[in-house]
Amino acid sequence: MTKVIRNGTIVTADRTYKADVLVKDGKIVAIGNDIHGDHEYDATGCYVMPGGIDPHTHLEMPFMGTYSADDFESGTRAALSGGTTMVVDFCLPSPGQSLLEAIQMWDNKSGRACCDYSFHMAITWWGEQVFNEMPEVVKRGIPTFKHFMAYKGALMVDDDEMFSSFQRCAELGALPLVHAENGDVVAQLSQKLLAEGNNGPEGHAYSRPPEVEGEATNRAIMIADMAGVPLYVVHTSCEQSHEAIRRARQKGMRVFGEPLIQHLVLDETEYFNKDWDHSARRVMSPPFRNKQHQDSLWAGLSAGSLQVVATDHCAFTSEQKRFGVGDFTKIPNGTGGLEDRLPVLWTFGVNTGRLTPNEFVAVTSTNIAKILNMYPKKGAILEGADADIIVWDPEKTKTISAKAQQSVIDYNVFEGIEVKGLPRYVFTRGEVAVNDGKVEARPGHGEFVAREPHMAV
Amino acid sequence: MTKVIRNGTIVTADRTYKADVLVKDGKIVAIGNDIHGDHEYDATGCYVMPGGIDPHTHLEMPFMGTYSADDFESGTRAALSGGTTMVVDFCLPSPGQSLLEAIQMWDNKSGRACCDYSFHMAITWWGEQVFNEMPEVVKRGIPTFKHFMAYKGALMVDDDEMFSSFQRCAELGALPLVHAENGDVVAQLSQKLLAEGNNGPEGHAYSRPPEVEGEATNRAIMIADMAGVPLYVVHTSCEQSHEAIRRARQKGMRVFGEPLIQHLVLDETEYFNKDWDHSARRVMSPPFRNKQHQDSLWAGLSAGSLQVVATDHCAFTSEQKRFGVGDFTKIPNGTGGLEDRLPVLWTFGVNTGRLTPNEFVAVTSTNIAKILNMYPKKGAILEGADADIIVWDPEKTKTISAKAQQSVIDYNVFEGIEVKGLPRYVFTRGEVAVNDGKVEARPGHGEFVAREPHMAV
Amino acid sequence: MTKVIRNGTIVTADRTYKADVLVKDGKIVAIGNDIHGDHEYDATGCYVMPGGIDPHTHLEMPFMGTYSADDFESGTRAALSGGTTMVVDFCLPSPGQSLLEAIQMWDNKSGRACCDYSFHMAITWWGEQVFNEMPEVVKRGIPTFKHFMAYKGALMVDDDEMFSSFQRCAELGALPLVHAENGDVVAQLSQKLLAEGNNGPEGHAYSRPPEVEGEATNRAIMIADMAGVPLYVVHTSCEQSHEAIRRARQKGMRVFGEPLIQHLVLDETEYFNKDWDHSARRVMSPPFRNKQHQDSLWAGLSAGSLQVVATDHCAFTSEQKRFGVGDFTKIPNGTGGLEDRLPVLWTFGVNTGRLTPNEFVAVTSTNIAKILNMYPKKGAILEGADADIIVWDPEKTKTISAKAQQSVIDYNVFEGIEVKGLPRYVFTRGEVAVNDGKVEARPGHGEFVAREPHMAV
Amino acid sequence: MTKVIRNGTIVTADRTYKADVLVKDGKIVAIGNDIHGDHEYDATGCYVMPGGIDPHTHLEMPFMGTYSADDFESGTRAALSGGTTMVVDFCLPSPGQSLLEAIQMWDNKSGRACCDYSFHMAITWWGEQVFNEMPEVVKRGIPTFKHFMAYKGALMVDDDEMFSSFQRCAELGALPLVHAENGDVVAQLSQKLLAEGNNGPEGHAYSRPPEVEGEATNRAIMIADMAGVPLYVVHTSCEQSHEAIRRARQKGMRVFGEPLIQHLVLDETEYFNKDWDHSARRVMSPPFRNKQHQDSLWAGLSAGSLQVVATDHCAFTSEQKRFGVGDFTKIPNGTGGLEDRLPVLWTFGVNTGRLTPNEFVAVTSTNIAKILNMYPKKGAILEGADADIIVWDPEKTKTISAKAQQSVIDYNVFEGIEVKGLPRYVFTRGEVAVNDGKVEARPGHGEFVAREPHMAV
Ligand SMILES: [Zn+2]
Ligand SMILES: [Zn+2]
Ligand SMILES: [Zn+2]
Ligand SMILES: [Zn+2]
Ligand SMILES: [Zn+2]
Ligand SMILES: [Zn+2]
Ligand SMILES: [Zn+2]
Ligand SMILES: [Zn+2]
Repeated sequence: MTKVIRNGTIVTADRTYKADVLVKDGKIVAIGNDIHGDHEYDATGCYVMPGGIDPHTHLEMPFMGTYSADDFESGTRAALSGGTTMVVDFCLPSPGQSLLEAIQMWDNKSGRACCDYSFHMAITWWGEQVFNEMPEVVKRGIPTFKHFMAYKGALMVDDDEMFSSFQRCAELGALPLVHAENGDVVAQLSQKLLAEGNNGPEGHAYSRPPEVEGEATNRAIMIADMAGVPLYVVHTSCEQSHEAIRRARQKGMRVFGEPLIQHLVLDETEYFNKDWDHSARRVMSPPFRNKQHQDSLWAGLSAGSLQVVATDHCAFTSEQKRFGVGDFTKIPNGTGGLEDRLPVLWTFGVNTGRLTPNEFVAVTSTNIAKILNMYPKKGAILEGADADIIVWDPEKTKTISAKAQQSVIDYNVFEGIEVKGLPRYVFTRGEVAVNDGKVEARPGHGEFVAREPHMAV
Repeated sequence: MTKVIRNGTIVTADRTYKADVLVKDGKIVAIGNDIHGDHEYDATGCYVMPGGIDPHTHLEMPFMGTYSADDFESGTRAALSGGTTMVVDFCLPSPGQSLLEAIQMWDNKSGRACCDYSFHMAITWWGEQVFNEMPEVVKRGIPTFKHFMAYKGALMVDDDEMFSSFQRCAELGALPLVHAENGDVVAQLSQKLLAEGNNGPEGHAYSRPPEVEGEATNRAIMIADMAGVPLYVVHTSCEQSHEAIRRARQKGMRVFGEPLIQHLVLDETEYFNKDWDHSARRVMSPPFRNKQHQDSLWAGLSAGSLQVVATDHCAFTSEQKRFGVGDFTKIPNGTGGLEDRLPVLWTFGVNTGRLTPNEFVAVTSTNIAKILNMYPKKGAILEGADADIIVWDPEKTKTISAKAQQSVIDYNVFEGIEVKGLPRYVFTRGEVAVNDGKVEARPGHGEFVAREPHMAV
Repeated sequence: MTKVIRNGTIVTADRTYKADVLVKDGKIVAIGNDIHGDHEYDATGCYVMPGGIDPHTHLEMPFMGTYSADDFESGTRAALSGGTTMVVDFCLPSPGQSLLEAIQMWDNKSGRACCDYSFHMAITWWGEQVFNEMPEVVKRGIPTFKHFMAYKGALMVDDDEMFSSFQRCAELGALPLVHAENGDVVAQLSQKLLAEGNNGPEGHAYSRPPEVEGEATNRAIMIADMAGVPLYVVHTSCEQSHEAIRRARQKGMRVFGEPLIQHLVLDETEYFNKDWDHSARRVMSPPFRNKQHQDSLWAGLSAGSLQVVATDHCAFTSEQKRFGVGDFTKIPNGTGGLEDRLPVLWTFGVNTGRLTPNEFVAVTSTNIAKILNMYPKKGAILEGADADIIVWDPEKTKTISAKAQQSVIDYNVFEGIEVKGLPRYVFTRGEVAVNDGKVEARPGHGEFVAREPHMAV
Repeated sequence: MTKVIRNGTIVTADRTYKADVLVKDGKIVAIGNDIHGDHEYDATGCYVMPGGIDPHTHLEMPFMGTYSADDFESGTRAALSGGTTMVVDFCLPSPGQSLLEAIQMWDNKSGRACCDYSFHMAITWWGEQVFNEMPEVVKRGIPTFKHFMAYKGALMVDDDEMFSSFQRCAELGALPLVHAENGDVVAQLSQKLLAEGNNGPEGHAYSRPPEVEGEATNRAIMIADMAGVPLYVVHTSCEQSHEAIRRARQKGMRVFGEPLIQHLVLDETEYFNKDWDHSARRVMSPPFRNKQHQDSLWAGLSAGSLQVVATDHCAFTSEQKRFGVGDFTKIPNGTGGLEDRLPVLWTFGVNTGRLTPNEFVAVTSTNIAKILNMYPKKGAILEGADADIIVWDPEKTKTISAKAQQSVIDYNVFEGIEVKGLPRYVFTRGEVAVNDGKVEARPGHGEFVAREPHMAV
C-alpha cells in the first residue's frame, strides 16, 4: 500500500520546490512530479515539510511522589496534533541508580507513544559505576548526556563531576548537554526571598535572573572546551547565555543553543499577574525574560548562533502547581508546548519575516536531527528517510485554547494567541496521525530511535 | 550514454553517505546503491562532492590598456583542474557605459569558457540610465550588483550613489555586493606614502590597514539596513570587517562575508620579502593580514558568521606587475588562486579539524549556490542537479608549483605549499574535465547560468 | 575683599572632605578649616563643587536669516542659574569665510556674557586658506576643531576633507570634534519621508536612526586613528555610537564621548505626542532614542567609556520652530538645557545611585576641563584655580517650568520634572551669580578662556 | 625640621605642573613656588609623584613549612628602592583559625617594615565564626576580603561560601577581592598532565589556560552582582578575564581589574626555556600569557576598564622552587617584582606612549588609594597627605639584575631588561629612603594604615 502527497510545495532546510512525495512501508520512496499511489493526500496550497522534532521533553517525569501530567501517550498525541513527529525525552536515574536500570524504566513508560522518540541520559550523580556504564548507554543508542547545574541537593552536579563526565563524553564521541543556571546562587536567592516573605510565583523568577543563567552557560562552555568536546545548552533563554555561546563559537568552539518557543514569545510580565494560578502555571526554569532577551534569541536563530527551538514540555496540572502555594520553590517547574511549538513559531517567526520557511524547518527539525545524529533518517524529505511529514497549511488559523488541546492539563500558556499556519496532515512513519486537521494518533505506534555517537561536528 | 561514479562516499553540505551517482545528459539522474552505466568511474576511497563554485573572479578584465592574464579559457581550465566547476565573474561597465552593452562585451569574452559561469554586474557609475537598465540586467539573469567603495577616481561610488543603488536592488529583489575599503583614506594614505618615498609593494599594504576595510564594511551594512536589503561583502579579510558583519547579523540583518583562500593562509610577512617581484605578485586589495585575522576568519567559517570562500582570481604576470616599479599604486591589483582554492582549503581547513568535510562543501559550493540563487541546479548532489561533481581523493598530495599550473602566469602565491586532498575526477555538466588527475577541459563547453532575483534570504 | 564658603563638604572629581574655601580676586586662595573672610557664605549641609562647564552650546547661532534665541547674555545667565559657570560655544564660519573673521564675529557676540566662555572652531569648508589659518586659530586659544558629518549641502564635510583636517589637527596638537551622522543617508531618508507625506516632527526622528549615528562615529574614529589624533564625539546619543567608541578605546585609541542630558533622560516617545508644537520643540540632532540607549549611556558614564555630559543648548522659540510646519527638515534643530543639566543629572544620576557625587563633578566639569585643556584653571577646587564654584544643596527641590526659567524661549523640554539638588550659591570667578537661589548674573562679567594645544592625552 | 623638594615638575593622576613641595612631620604641608626649608632636595629635570602603592604582596607568607623569602623588612626595602612607598599584604588564616588571631600573627611579622603597609583579610574558610568576626576585622581597618577560587583543598572557597561572604561584605560596606581561576578544573588538568608525564614547570602553565581564569572572573562578577557589592579582581592576566570585567562595567557594575607588571611585559615563551630553574622561577598563578593578552591589558589601562598595576610579589629562592622538581604542582607559586614595577611600567608604558605620566601615577598609586579607601592620605601630592613621594628621573637608566637587587632571592624575572626612568629620591612619610639612588630604608619605620569601609564606589 502506498500513499502520495500531491501538489504541495516541498520545504526543507535547504530549498523550496514543487513535487509529490511517495510513501511506502513508513519510508519516503520517491519524490517527483505527478506521482500516484493507493491513497492520495492533497497538499495544494500547502508546504510539505519534515515533521517537527522536539529535542527536549519530560513525559511522565517522576516528581515529588507524582509525575508530570502528560505521559508518552498524551504527550506524543499532543506533539503529532501540532506537527511534531518525534520527541527526545530525558532518562533520569535516581541518585545512585544504575543508568541501565533507568533506561529500563523509561522503556517501560514509552510503550504507548504515538510517535517516535529517543532519550538523553541525565548524569544526576557521579561515580565509578556511572563512568563504567556510559559506554553501554551509548551502545544502546543514547550518545547524549544531560547535566544539571541547578536543582541543588537534587539533580545538580558540581564542576568537578561535570568536567569528569565531559571528558568521558569526549572519549565516547558523546555530546554533553547542560541545564545552565548556578544552583548555589539560585538556592540562596530562593531562601532569601522566602525569608523576606516573597513566596509567590513571581519569587521564582526573581530567584533566577539572566545573569545566573549566563554565568552557568559560560562555565559549562569553558569546561567543555577543556574537555575537548562540543556542548549543547538546553533552554537558552536570555542574552547573557546567548552571548556566552556566540563568544565561544567565535573562538571556533562547537556550542549549540536551544531557545524554547515559550521564551521566544512570552515574557516576564506573565509573573506580574495577580492571579496565583496564572503565574504559577508559567513557573519554569529558566523563567520567562523581558522583551530584549526575545530580540536576542530571534536574531540568534537567523544569524545561526542559536540552532534549534524546543519546548521543555513538562506539564503539570493546576492542582499539581498548587503544591507550591505559600512556597514558590515547591511549585513544580514546567509548562506545556508540544502542541503549539510549530504553529506559534510559524506565526511569530515566518509570518513576521524573521525566519524563512527553510529556516523554520531547520530549527524545528533538520538541525536537531543533525546535532543529535539521526539525519537524514529524521529531519529530511529525502528518498529513504522516515516518512515523518507535515502538510502545512499557511492559511489555516486557530486561537489556542486549553479546551481544545490534546495535553491532559487544564490550561495552556499560549491561551488566546491566534496562530496562522497549521498542519492539514501529519504522517508518522507513513501513518496518518492528523487527517485534515483531525487527530488520529495511534498509541503504541511510536518506536525508539537509536542514535550513533561521533556526530559530524 | 550514461556515466556512473561508483563506490565513493557522497559528501554534501548536509550529510555523508555511501552511494553511486548516475549521470546522463549533463544531469544527475540517480543516486543509489550498485548503479551501473556505460562509463564507470571508480571513487573508492574518495569523496564525491558538488563541484566548487568561485563567486568572485576577474577573467580577461580590462586594465590600463591591457587585460588580466587569465581569460575565460585558461581561467576556467585552471578552475576545473582544482575542482571548481563554475565561476562568477564581474561585468564592469566603463564610466557612462550602458550596463547592457557591458553584458554584451562580457558575453563575447566568455565564449571559450571550459566550465559554466555567471556574472555579477558592477555599478561603476550612477545615473538615470543605470537606474533604468537595472531591471533588464536582472531579467537577463544577473540579480547581483557590485559596488566599489575604493578605487577613487575610477570604480568608486560614494554613499549617496550606493544608497540609491541599494534601494533599487531592494525594489528588484537583487542582492548588492561591496568591495569595502574607504577609498578616500586609501587615496590619501597612498599619496602620503609615496611622498615619503615608500613606493615599494609593501606600501600597498600600509595604505590599506584593516581599520579602513572594517569601516567601509560597517558603513555598507548600515546603508543596506536603511535600504532594507541583504548585503554580500566580498573579500572579507580581517577581524574588523568580520566584527562588523557579525554585529549586524546579531541584530537580525542578513549580511554575508566572503573570505578569500589567500587571506586564510597567507599573511602580511609576504610583503616584507626583499624581492620586489615576490612582494608585488602578492599585491591585492585588501592586502594579506596578520595571523590573528586568519584565526578570526577560520572561526567565522565554522561559526557561520562568514559563509563562503572565494579567490578574487585576477592574475597578472610578473611583467604586468612591474608596471608599478617605483610606484606601488600602479601595480595591478590581484593574485591567482582558482586552481588552488579547494586543495588549500581542504589541507588547512579539513585536515586540521577546523572544518568538517560537510562544511568544506558548504563554503566552497552549496552556500554560494544558495546565496547567489542557483541552488540546487548548482552546489548539490541531488537528482536533477547539474552534474558538476568532484571525486576527491583525500590521500592524494602535491606541492603547488607555478611550473605545473594551468594559469598562464609565471608564478603562484601558494608556491611550495604541500597540499593533501586533490581531485581524481572532475565533471562539468557530465563531461569529464579532470580524468584521474589529467586535465581534459574543453573550451566552449561552459554556459552562462542565468539566476533569478528574490533569493530566499 | 575676600569671600569664604564655610562649613560645606567639598566634592571634587577626586574626593570628598570638609573644608572652607577662601576666595580673593576671582581665585581660590586657600582651602582649609575654620577660614574667615569679609563675606561669608554658609554651606552647611551643602556640597561645594567646581562650577559646571558646558562643552557644547550654540548661543546666538545664525540660522536661516535669524538666530538661536538665547544669546551670550541670556544663555550664560541660564547657565549660571543652574550651576554652570562656563560654556564652550561653536564658532561657525560661513562657506569660504576666513576662520579669523569668524572668530571676530563670535568675539563681538560674546561681550555681554555673564560667565566665562571659550570657543571651538568649526571646519565648515576646506581649502588652503583653512589649512593655513588653523595654526593662528590655535594660537588664539582655540585648539579644538568641530566637523559636521551631517547637514548635507550646508555644514557637512566629506571623508577626504575630514581626513585632511584631522591630519592638520595632529600636526598642531589640536583635538578634532565630530557631529556624527551620515549626512547622505539622512538627506535621502528625509526626502523619502517627505515624499511619502510624513512631514511632521516625528519624521525628523525617523530620518536619523541610531545606526546612522553609529556608522558615522565608527567612520570618524577610523579616520582619527589613521591621522594619529584623539577624537571627541559630540552628542553621543545611542548604543551604536557608544559601542564604536568603546571598541576603539579597547584598541588603545583615545576617543571621548559626550552624552547630552536630554538623551540621558528623555526618550523617543516625546515625538509620538500628537501636539505638533510639543514634538517640534524636541527636534534636535540626534533625536531622542529609546530607553535601552539611555541604559547604555548611563553605564558608559560610570564605566568611563563615556566621559562628559553636555547640553548642545541651541534654543529656538515655538514661533521659530513653526517655520517647519509641513516640512520637518525646516524645523530649527535644537533644544535648551543649560539651566537644567546639573539638577537633572543629579536627580537621575546621583539620587538613583548610578553616579557618585565625585563622578557627577567629573562628568559635568573636571573631565571637560581636562579634555579641553584648561584644567585646573577650570574644573577644580584647588588653590590657584578660578573661583567658579557651586554650593549645592542636595535637599533643595523644584519642579522645572518654562515660566520660571532664565532662557528666553517659551517652553522647556524638561517641563514638569521634579529635581532634587540645586545650587544655593554660584560663584563665577569669585562673583556671586546665584545668591541663596536668586540669580544675580552680571552681563559682561564673562571672559574668553584661551586654551593650549597638546592636551595630556 | 622641614624638607623641601625643589625645582621639580609635580605629576599627579590629575595634572602636571611646576612646584616645590614642603614636608614636615611626615606630611606634605605646602606646595608652591620658591619654597625653602631645612633640607632641600633638587628635583630639576625630575617628576615629583606620589609614591607607588602595591595593592598585592605576600611577604613572609607561610608555605609548606617554610615562608616566602622576602619578609616585611627586605620586601619593603625592595619596594622603596623602586619607588613604592606602601604595600598591602594578605592576612591568611589557617582553616578554622580565627580571623583576629591571624591579624595578630601578621602584626607580629610586620614590625620591621621599612614603609607603610595595610592588610587584606583572606576568607580561607567559612562558618559562623568567620561571619561574626568580619565586622571586627573591618573595625580594625581591614575592609577588603580576599577569596581564592583556586588552590582546591587548601585556600579555595566554593560558590556558596563566596556568595555568603560577598553578602556579608555588602552589609559591612567592605570590598571583596578574588583570585579568579576555576580550582576544580585546574586540579584535574594538573593531575592529567602529571599522569601523562608532563611534570615540568611548563605543565603549570598548561594547567591554567586563560579560559579557566576568564570563567572564574565571570562567575565572581555574577555573584558580586547578585550580592550587590563591587568586586576587585586581582592579577587579571588575560583578555578573557578583562572581557568579563568590561562587559560587567558596561552594565553599570563596579568591577576593578588589576594587571600585574609581570603579565604586562613577560610572556609564556619564558616557560619554553629548557632550563628548569629559569622556567620554575616564573611559575606563578595565573601564568604568563601570550602577547595578544598583553595588548588587551595595556589597552584596558588606557581605556579605564582596568585600573591598577600590582606585583603579587611572593618571592621564593631557586632552592625553594626546586621543591617542585618532578612535580610542577609542588613548585611554590610566585615571583618578585616589588622593586621593578615602577621602572618597568614607566619604560614599557610611558616611554612607548601607551600611558601618560598622569595615568602612570593613577595606576600605580592614586587609583589604588581610592579603591582601597585611603585617598588622599596616600596616593596624592596634596597638602595634608602623607609625604610618600618619589622624585623620578626620566633619564636615569639601569639594567635590571638580581645581583644588584634588594630582594633576598637569587634571581629576577626581569633580569637583563634595561629600564629608563628611576627614582632619584624616595620619601616615606617624610623620611628619605632613597637618596640620590642610594637605598637608606629604615626597618621599623613602616606603620599599619587602617582603612575605612564604604568606599566611594
Ligand atoms: Zn532544565
Ligand atoms: Zn528540561
Ligand atoms: Zn575587490
Ligand atoms: Zn574582485
Ligand atoms: Zn550637532
Ligand atoms: Zn551642536
Ligand atoms: Zn592569587
Ligand atoms: Zn597573590
